[in-house]
Amino acid sequence: MLRIDHIGIAVKNLESSSAVFEKLLGKPSYKTETVESESVTTEFFEIGESKVELLVAESNDSPIAKFIEKRGEGIHHIAFEVENIVAEIERLKNEGFQFIADQPKKGADNKIICFLHPKSTNGVLVELCQSV
Amino acid sequence: MLRIDHIGIAVKNLESSSAVFEKLLGKPSYKTETVESESVTTEFFEIGESKVELLVAESNDSPIAKFIEKRGEGIHHIAFEVENIVAEIERLKNEGFQFIADQPKKGADNKIICFLHPKSTNGVLVELCQSV
Repeated sequence: MLRIDHIGIAVKNLESSSAVFEKLLGKPSYKTETVESESVTTEFFEIGESKVELLVAESNDSPIAKFIEKRGEGIHHIAFEVENIVAEIERLKNEGFQFIADQPKKGADNKIICFLHPKSTNGVLVELCQSV
Repeated sequence: MLRIDHIGIAVKNLESSSAVFEKLLGKPSYKTETVESESVTTEFFEIGESKVELLVAESNDSPIAKFIEKRGEGIHHIAFEVENIVAEIERLKNEGFQFIADQPKKGADNKIICFLHPKSTNGVLVELCQSV
């Protein structure tokens, strides 16, 4: 684990939330990107060596739509940058952690990513990501 | 806003959750500290320029006890390090953000801190902190 890569925040409206976080962080976002496989559009703000990622659902069956329906807007996940995602998944499986999917997949912002199941991490949705 | 100082995670049992995060992050915590004014005990793990802060309630009327009762264990807040907390509170009030308390107070880990109200930040509990 190298650093916090980003904090993912589920929002209902990207335009109004982007304006809120631009004011909060004191700078505009640097990237907007849609991830078709997750039915989600993301917007990124830099903060130190990390990012804040706003996430808006592009369809009702997006994981972000389901999260907001259940818990409302708010922090959705925390992502840690790792050097070697395959080795890290192996290490964490050996430690007893459960993963949502067994194989890493393409995420936003030029990363390959993988999510741990929140039931093995105290209710926290943890993402591992590796730059590609 | 300089960087993500820490992510606060509400847990029920500090001993078992500390073991989970030690395995997840691949290193032990560096500090445990009780903040009497918040009825909370904290445990910190370093990760890059940021920290993960586990939070356990020390009484039933602790904000952490109320959070867990309502939402279960999970991510409780995100804290941003600022250079001058008084100036940053002033800037954000002028931008229309609401604060839980008007004045910064002593927090854990040698910081003075202040929380924004989540209703002005898309459901995210945001802490500002300044090293003292």
